Amino acid sequence: MVDIAVIGGGPAGLSAAINGTQRNKSVTVFGRGIESSFIYKAEDVDNYLGMPHVSGADMMKAFHQHAVSKGVLFQEGRVLQIFPMGESFTINVENEFYEAKTIVLAIGLPRVKAIKGEEALLGKGVSYCATCDGMLYRRKPVVVVSDSEEGVNDANFLNEICEKVTYIVRKAGEQEKNLHKNIEVIESRPTEVLGREVVSGIRVGERQIDCKGIFFIRETAPINSLLAGLEMEDSAIKVNRFMETNVPGVFAAGDCTGRPYQVSKAVGEGLIAGQQAVKVLSDKVN
Amino acid sequence: MVDIAVIGGGPAGLSAAINGTQRNKSVTVFGRGIESSFIYKAEDVDNYLGMPHVSGADMMKAFHQHAVSKGVLFQEGRVLQIFPMGESFTINVENEFYEAKTIVLAIGLPRVKAIKGEEALLGKGVSYCATCDGMLYRRKPVVVVSDSEEGVNDANFLNEICEKVTYIVRKAGEQEKNLHKNIEVIESRPTEVLGREVVSGIRVGERQIDCKGIFFIRETAPINSLLAGLEMEDSAIKVNRFMETNVPGVFAAGDCTGRPYQVSKAVGEGLIAGQQAVKVLSDKVN
Repeated sequence: MVDIAVIGGGPAGLSAAINGTQRNKSVTVFGRGIESSFIYKAEDVDNYLGMPHVSGADMMKAFHQHAVSKGVLFQEGRVLQIFPMGESFTINVENEFYEAKTIVLAIGLPRVKAIKGEEALLGKGVSYCATCDGMLYRRKPVVVVSDSEEGVNDANFLNEICEKVTYIVRKAGEQEKNLHKNIEVIESRPTEVLGREVVSGIRVGERQIDCKGIFFIRETAPINSLLAGLEMEDSAIKVNRFMETNVPGVFAAGDCTGRPYQVSKAVGEGLIAGQQAVKVLSDKVN
Repeated sequence: MVDIAVIGGGPAGLSAAINGTQRNKSVTVFGRGIESSFIYKAEDVDNYLGMPHVSGADMMKAFHQHAVSKGVLFQEGRVLQIFPMGESFTINVENEFYEAKTIVLAIGLPRVKAIKGEEALLGKGVSYCATCDGMLYRRKPVVVVSDSEEGVNDANFLNEICEKVTYIVRKAGEQEKNLHKNIEVIESRPTEVLGREVVSGIRVGERQIDCKGIFFIRETAPINSLLAGLEMEDSAIKVNRFMETNVPGVFAAGDCTGRPYQVSKAVGEGLIAGQQAVKVLSDKVN
């Protein structure tokens, strides 16, 4: 059981993490590598005080190095869901489960929204994890909606066990060249998950593709399915000045709490969220 | 007329400043040198993301260097008072006056409170500036209450023109050795300014010292006399999530807005305050 689970390894998450270890709490950062952080691709950042004219990549490397030097642990993988369990939380990372006493959500800009029908049919044909649920669709037609570089691997894996795999991506890139030749690729965005009790298909533009399973492979799960009951405001996670969300023991920091989408703001909020998580942990002990 | 006047050159002020110049606004930082920032004396700071194990002095030098590289201007001096003038503000820095369109207060932890009677008799014997008002007390007895290294210079200056100078300091240090031998030194804290219409004396412990003028020489003026009508909450400047105070065009950031007193929080709030000042300036133009 870790004291603080930080979801997301961008500036906000790493700032929360170092401020947790600074006060002798165990901290694990869950997420993809630093390359997946939005800021990593920035050519030049010049408004994070003390680090003039730095590339996003160099900045993230310095941030990550700082966190490593302070004993922060890292767990790679896409966080699919967080379950409040009373005194602690269970975190589902693909097909692994972890326990934590407190949570800091630092998941960045919620770039994805669940599409129509997706939430209603989650677990009834809609899945966020091919390795977890793939076998349920053996010898059946499935669709992979890919928003992550893992989409290609997942599609190839499903291709070995399913009847047919259709792969939907906004724009096929270099990595899509590694898709098995039997996989049909559609460059588009789906608009609706079809089906009443269970999934029967997916709508993409004018087309309707029949299938039994749909795998949404995204960097981050849509917030509304990540943690049930989490209160939002203007499509950002609602927080107070202590970075507390409406769910006790869950804090949020960085782009996911709203504008401005800036490193300094994320780092400042991460500090507050991390220190506040420490406070909650200390209050429990005393 | 400067676009943004930042009061205070600590982490919050410098972050606000670089985010103003980043968007092509003219910014002047008013305050004492970087050595006067609270963080400057910190031995080791290890929780500002990306700058592991750095001394407060080295950190402030890097921050200051960053601001200089971005064209931020600096004006040394103690800011005594800010006057809203409708579309702009007048800033009284000792015996100079400056104009600015917007204000960012980044004055750090309000370590000083006005003592009893001080506010009521401000301008009626109570002064914050020896070079400004000293001549009013020619050949009269005065008291200098010193909380700043400038106190010694000011007392020596007053000693040349006043009948008698009494110097009150919490604890005399190295610099107090430079006081003229005619100046009486009292190591204590005064508790009350005495007088009805005008100053008649000051209370220090059991003692009562008769005088016509009292000079409070502090790093920062007490907030309540710095800007009239500024709303406070729990002895911090009250701000919303955009770092707006209750006075239009005036923002606040850093320790002066409340806990946690941490560099990351100050830098994050400084960014928001700076960007919000830019927004107000742009809205005025359009």
